[in-house]
Amino acid sequence: MYEAFWRKMGDKCTVVIKGYEHLSYFSTNKNPCWFLEPKLEDSIRSLHGAVGNAETDGYTIVVGTGSSQLLQAVLYALAPQDQPDPINVVSAAPFYSSYPETTNIVRSGVYKWAGDAHGFDKDEPYIEFVTSPNNPNGVIRGPVVNRDGGFVVYDLAYYWPQYTPITSSLDFDIMLFTASNSIGVSKESQLRVAKILQVVADGCKRFGSSDGDNLFEYGRNVLAKRWEILRETDGMEECEKVFKGVKILVRSGRRFGSDPGYARVSMMGKDEEFNGLIERLSSVIQICNNDD
Amino acid sequence: MYEAFWRKMGDKCTVVIKGYEHLSYFSTNKNPCWFLEPKLEDSIRSLHGAVGNAETDGYTIVVGTGSSQLLQAVLYALAPQDQPDPINVVSAAPFYSSYPETTNIVRSGVYKWAGDAHGFDKDEPYIEFVTSPNNPNGVIRGPVVNRDGGFVVYDLAYYWPQYTPITSSLDFDIMLFTASNSIGVSKESQLRVAKILQVVADGCKRFGSSDGDNLFEYGRNVLAKRWEILRETDGMEECEKVFKGVKILVRSGRRFGSDPGYARVSMMGKDEEFNGLIERLSSVIQICNNDD
Repeated sequence: MYEAFWRKMGDKCTVVIKGYEHLSYFSTNKNPCWFLEPKLEDSIRSLHGAVGNAETDGYTIVVGTGSSQLLQAVLYALAPQDQPDPINVVSAAPFYSSYPETTNIVRSGVYKWAGDAHGFDKDEPYIEFVTSPNNPNGVIRGPVVNRDGGFVVYDLAYYWPQYTPITSSLDFDIMLFTASNSIGVSKESQLRVAKILQVVADGCKRFGSSDGDNLFEYGRNVLAKRWEILRETDGMEECEKVFKGVKILVRSGRRFGSDPGYARVSMMGKDEEFNGLIERLSSVIQICNNDD
Repeated sequence: MYEAFWRKMGDKCTVVIKGYEHLSYFSTNKNPCWFLEPKLEDSIRSLHGAVGNAETDGYTIVVGTGSSQLLQAVLYALAPQDQPDPINVVSAAPFYSSYPETTNIVRSGVYKWAGDAHGFDKDEPYIEFVTSPNNPNGVIRGPVVNRDGGFVVYDLAYYWPQYTPITSSLDFDIMLFTASNSIGVSKESQLRVAKILQVVADGCKRFGSSDGDNLFEYGRNVLAKRWEILRETDGMEECEKVFKGVKILVRSGRRFGSDPGYARVSMMGKDEEFNGLIERLSSVIQICNNDD
C-alpha cells in the first residue's frame, strides 16, 4: 500500500552501491551487534525521536532479518541456559499467531510455548510477549501476568502513527520494532548478489585470458602469494599459546574437534591485515627461537 | 582480500535501487523459497554452470541470510518432527567449529550434536555434514559414516577455483554454497533502510503540513479509507467458512489462541489487492444473505 508514497519520494530514497563497497563482516566495534551499519543506527534513533514512540538514549540498537529473527534472538538471550526445564513463553489471547510457532519450531529445551498469558498461573520463570497495538485486533496492551520472575518483551510492530495515536515515548527494557510493515521487505542484498554473481560468471568465460577479469584467478593468485609468505615463517606450530601474546586471534583446534596444538588463522582479510599477521607471526617465531 | 578486484570492475557491479522498488514479501510463486528474486536464481545457476562446480538442472535453489541460517534450515528440514529422540548430527574431525554450536544453540529436541563422525557407531538415524574442501584444513572429503538411515549434507563453501581445483560438477542431493567468502557480506539492506528511515524521519517534521511528505499521514489516510469501505460490507462475521469458497486467504482465530469464528484478513496490500478483497467480501455477503 506504500508504493505510491515511495514513488512520490523519487530519488530521495534511491540507493547506489558500488561493487567494492561494504565488503566486511564487521560494521562497528561500538555495538555488540557488530554487523550494524552506523548509518542505520543513526537513522533508527532519528526516526524514533521524530515520531516520539520510543526512547533510544541509553538503549542498544540490535537489528535482524525481520522481526521473527529478533523474536528468536530475544528468546535465546533471555532463556537461562543452565536450567533443566525450559522457560515458559506466554502471551495474552488473541496473540500473534507466529509466537507459538516461532517458540516451538525446533522443540527447544531452553524455552517452550505455554499458551495464553491469562491462564498462566505456574510459579515458574516466564517470558511474556506484549503486542501493542495487538496483532490481530489492534488493542493497546500491557502485561497480564505481572509478577516477579518474569521478563516482558514488547512487540511494537504497529506502534506507529498510521496505525494508532502515539500517546507516549515508550521506555521498556526490550522493545521490538520492524520496518517491513511500513517500507516493505528488503530484497536489495539479493539484487546486488545477483548482479555480482553474473559479473563473476561472465568473467569465467575468459578463464586463462590475460585481461584479469576472472575473480577466481585473481583470488588464487592472491592466496598463492600469501601462502608463499606464510611458509617462510616456519616453526610456528609449537607456539599456539604464544599467539595471544602478540594479539593474533586464532580459533583453537579444540573447537574443530581436533588437537589444541593446532590453531586456525584467517588468510582472507585485506592486504594490511595479512601483512600484520605475518609481522606478528615473525615475532612469535623469534620468541619461540629464544625459548629454545 | 577481494576489494581491489571489485574496484577494477567499476560500475559493472554497481546497483541502483529506487525507493518504490521491490516492496513485496513475495518474489516468486515458482519456488518454495518464495522470497527468492528470480534474477538471483538465474545468476546462481549461471555461475555454477560457468565454473562447473555443481549441477543445477532439476535442483531447487534456496537462499538464506548466510550459510549458518541455511545450516539451521537444513537441520529443521531433515530432522523428523514426530520422533521422541533428536536425530544425531555428526561431522568428521577436524570439523567446522560452527557445527556443534549451530546444532545445539537452543538445545533442540529434534536434532542434537553427536560429535566426530569417525566415532559414530549408534544404530540410529543421523545427519552427516561433509565439508569439502574442509574447514579448517582444506582437504577434499566424502562421507565417513556411509550406511542407510542417514542424510548427507555437503557444505561446499570452499569448492571454488581460487581454493581448490574443480575436478567435477557435483550433483549431491543437498549442497550448500555461500557468497560471503568471495564477495563479502551484504550490508545493502541496512544501507537502504537507513536512507529510507531518514527520509521518513525528515518527513515527520512536517506533520500536519499540506505537502504530503509524511509517511504516517499517508498511511493513516489510506487505511482510514479502506476501513470505511470495509465497514460497508457488513455482516461478514458469521461467514468465515465461506471465505475459502471465494478464495480469500484468512488466518483463523484459532491460530491466535482465539475463537475460530474470527478470521484475520490483511488490509495492507496494494490497491488492486484490497479492491479484490472488497469485491469478494461483497459476494460472501450475498451468499450469506441468500442462506438466511
